[in-house]
Amino acid sequence: MVESTNTRDILVQLGKKVVQSILNEEFPRLEIPDRSTDNIVFDPEQGQFVLGTTRVMRDSSKIRHVKSFAQLVWVASFAKDLLDASRTSSLRDLYYSSEAFGVKFVDQAESDRIVADLESLSGMAREDFGVFPEEHSSVYGQVTMRYTVPGYLGREVDLTVSPDGLPIGPALMTAEPVKSNAEIVLAVECGGMFARLIETRAWERFKAVLIHLGGQPPRSTRRLMRLLHDRLDLPVYIFTDGDPWGMHIAQVIITGSANAAHIRGLTIPDARWIGVTPEDIVEYSLPCDSMNDADIKRLDELALDSRYTGPEWQQHISGFKDLRRKAEQQAFSRYGMDYVVDTYLADKLA
Amino acid sequence: MVESTNTRDILVQLGKKVVQSILNEEFPRLEIPDRSTDNIVFDPEQGQFVLGTTRVMRDSSKIRHVKSFAQLVWVASFAKDLLDASRTSSLRDLYYSSEAFGVKFVDQAESDRIVADLESLSGMAREDFGVFPEEHSSVYGQVTMRYTVPGYLGREVDLTVSPDGLPIGPALMTAEPVKSNAEIVLAVECGGMFARLIETRAWERFKAVLIHLGGQPPRSTRRLMRLLHDRLDLPVYIFTDGDPWGMHIAQVIITGSANAAHIRGLTIPDARWIGVTPEDIVEYSLPCDSMNDADIKRLDELALDSRYTGPEWQQHISGFKDLRRKAEQQAFSRYGMDYVVDTYLADKLA
Repeated sequence: MVESTNTRDILVQLGKKVVQSILNEEFPRLEIPDRSTDNIVFDPEQGQFVLGTTRVMRDSSKIRHVKSFAQLVWVASFAKDLLDASRTSSLRDLYYSSEAFGVKFVDQAESDRIVADLESLSGMAREDFGVFPEEHSSVYGQVTMRYTVPGYLGREVDLTVSPDGLPIGPALMTAEPVKSNAEIVLAVECGGMFARLIETRAWERFKAVLIHLGGQPPRSTRRLMRLLHDRLDLPVYIFTDGDPWGMHIAQVIITGSANAAHIRGLTIPDARWIGVTPEDIVEYSLPCDSMNDADIKRLDELALDSRYTGPEWQQHISGFKDLRRKAEQQAFSRYGMDYVVDTYLADKLA
Repeated sequence: MVESTNTRDILVQLGKKVVQSILNEEFPRLEIPDRSTDNIVFDPEQGQFVLGTTRVMRDSSKIRHVKSFAQLVWVASFAKDLLDASRTSSLRDLYYSSEAFGVKFVDQAESDRIVADLESLSGMAREDFGVFPEEHSSVYGQVTMRYTVPGYLGREVDLTVSPDGLPIGPALMTAEPVKSNAEIVLAVECGGMFARLIETRAWERFKAVLIHLGGQPPRSTRRLMRLLHDRLDLPVYIFTDGDPWGMHIAQVIITGSANAAHIRGLTIPDARWIGVTPEDIVEYSLPCDSMNDADIKRLDELALDSRYTGPEWQQHISGFKDLRRKAEQQAFSRYGMDYVVDTYLADKLA
């Protein structure tokens, strides 16, 4: 893993601190940045949600803290074992593994929460200590990556090796870009669009690294996009369905989400949502559906969301509200299979 | 595409038949094997559901048939265009593409149904004419495949190239196995297990091609498993969660489903479900949950299902009913991360 030394040090320090307290005949205590809603604020300068200054104490001298204190120490120890063995675990496996150690979690939601506590305490993302969710997005494009995982250490893979794309799993997420002919990152919401952009060689035409998001993408995907953006200096464009949910997929890639307010390195403030915007629906006469109550309610929520204060976002929201219609990115197929590449994306990326 | 010539011929014949009727000044008619429940029977000899002898007529002289007749002819023409251009389409894109031709479908369910009509009429699977769903499973193992898609024609890929696995998309599904060191196919339900079997080099130890099913797998995955089974003579083992749903994932791989009764070449009658069986839950003292009403109801349904008449299946069903408990495949993690490989799979595959 790329940052294992650093992450490992942090975990070791944490362990030493707990042990030292015990040796000093004191009850160990841990102070964790508070992740409750009250302590989450939007920082316009960083362009993302961050945690405020409130901290919560896990105090092992208090009966009601003992369980979560022990759970946290166990998760940290499990994470260190993963790093030492260069292994990974899914969040689900972490939950089940706890039984081997007599550590009890009511359910996976509880162990996921303790994992987030460790992230918050250590300032590292769970991916840094080898813990991943199960979902994967995919990637395809003219970039060569060098793996850092055991068995593949130093091996290079070209991201065009498989015409079906490559999954962004633990190995690819921790790989390093070494060579590239790409000029942009183009992330698309649905798998059909991803396949089409590969098949029509749109990746070559637009010199694009293609990302298949598949709805709200896992954090591993956002980290890879950020890596390609930072290291290869690639601007990031996001192409989603034309509805509040698609627009919000783009927003989370750009400014992040409240429940990752304790994590840095995930947002891409200068990424751009190219559409489908409400204006596109009109301009391209796309086949569309009426918005339902959930869509309208979502627009009302987003209108008040601190991430949407910019005039361009407010314009998109009122555009959707006036139109009261939504369109999928596949809707361009009404003009033939290549229209979306030859006309829409060519216009938007010009 | 592997079978494009053959599939193309069938589509061309279909078109000629329609045109000939018109030239003869007759209303074109098409006879389609009936896919309604009444006409689906389980054939113990083939070990799968098949269609009976009833056929339905699409008669363009009848007003109420005109729409579905035209839809069917359009889907066939769209499929031929895909084959001619060596392109693929998602089911969703096919639905939207219809607008370009003034062909109306009420919704995608309707266009999906017409695609199934064309499968039934032509005896080919939609994948043969380049139409795919969006979902993908993944594969990893010591097999070299040769691509048949444009841009990759004749290029070979080793299925261990990416330590995160390779998606079973249109390109891999139509590739040909050319070389292999594998001795079995091992399909697993969840992504965490798939990642673990890669990471622990279980694929090397068991000489296994690993498949990540991710729930009920798309047909493309079942076809690839069948191809590896037929061409490389690999026995197929299926490892799922220990509940009626996991068991049924295995059953569908083995004997197929009623809604694919009109398709051949998907089932693997000698594939084996290795577990998690109800006996395993007891024998390995796995962490488990109580079954809910839906689980019990599902067991009652399966007990009457013609695919479950074998004594071994009936034993699994009554085992679950007696136990009234279920366990996930990750539950083995209670004994440490490597137990599932070193002990459970080593036992089962011995």
